[in-house]
Amino acid sequence: MEQYQEQLNGIFHALADPTRRAVIGRLGKGPASISDLAKPFDMALPSFMKHIHLLEDSGLIRTAKQGRVRTCVIEKKQFAAVETWLDAQRAIWEGRTDRLEKFVTAIQEQEDIK
Amino acid sequence: MEQYQEQLNGIFHALADPTRRAVIGRLGKGPASISDLAKPFDMALPSFMKHIHLLEDSGLIRTAKQGRVRTCVIEKKQFAAVETWLDAQRAIWEGRTDRLEKFVTAIQEQEDIK
Repeated sequence: MEQYQEQLNGIFHALADPTRRAVIGRLGKGPASISDLAKPFDMALPSFMKHIHLLEDSGLIRTAKQGRVRTCVIEKKQFAAVETWLDAQRAIWEGRTDRLEKFVTAIQEQEDIK
Repeated sequence: MEQYQEQLNGIFHALADPTRRAVIGRLGKGPASISDLAKPFDMALPSFMKHIHLLEDSGLIRTAKQGRVRTCVIEKKQFAAVETWLDAQRAIWEGRTDRLEKFVTAIQEQEDIK
């Protein structure tokens, strides 16, 4: 459960910035190089790289270097953690605690396996 | 659009903390006083109040004082902003840009009315 909480901390923190959300939006269309991603932003490269590193740390994107070019790719499956959390909230609102219990058990079992 | 971005900044920032997510989870079951909400946390009241203020600023909860007791209530409709953003990402992934354009137009019209 602890690991899931830390994953959510990282994801929500990553999404709490308009530049990072714009990068996510751009990468949703397909992979892109850092220099292409940086173009629309009026920002020094080191500042932009901080956003990229934070997105990478959150697991929402992956990056890979080929020669001189570092390419970024969106990691769609990481968004499932947010959807699972929202689903859990909705389950609480609707009193569907049986479903919530299953969800908590599933998370715990997942972490027991790790 | 600017206002929607600021709303998302506030919401995602509010959700990037396990104490604040736990408070949201508790309030999903029904309204609660600050002192009841604070009980499960090993935290000084001023620190806990910072979390409450941040949640209130994000619009995810409302608080109201009756006599000496301040009661907190979840603001479920605020979560729709997160769902809308996630839907927009999915629309990009699936190339449903027509739907995305409608979404952007709807957001802009909403803000023109304000």
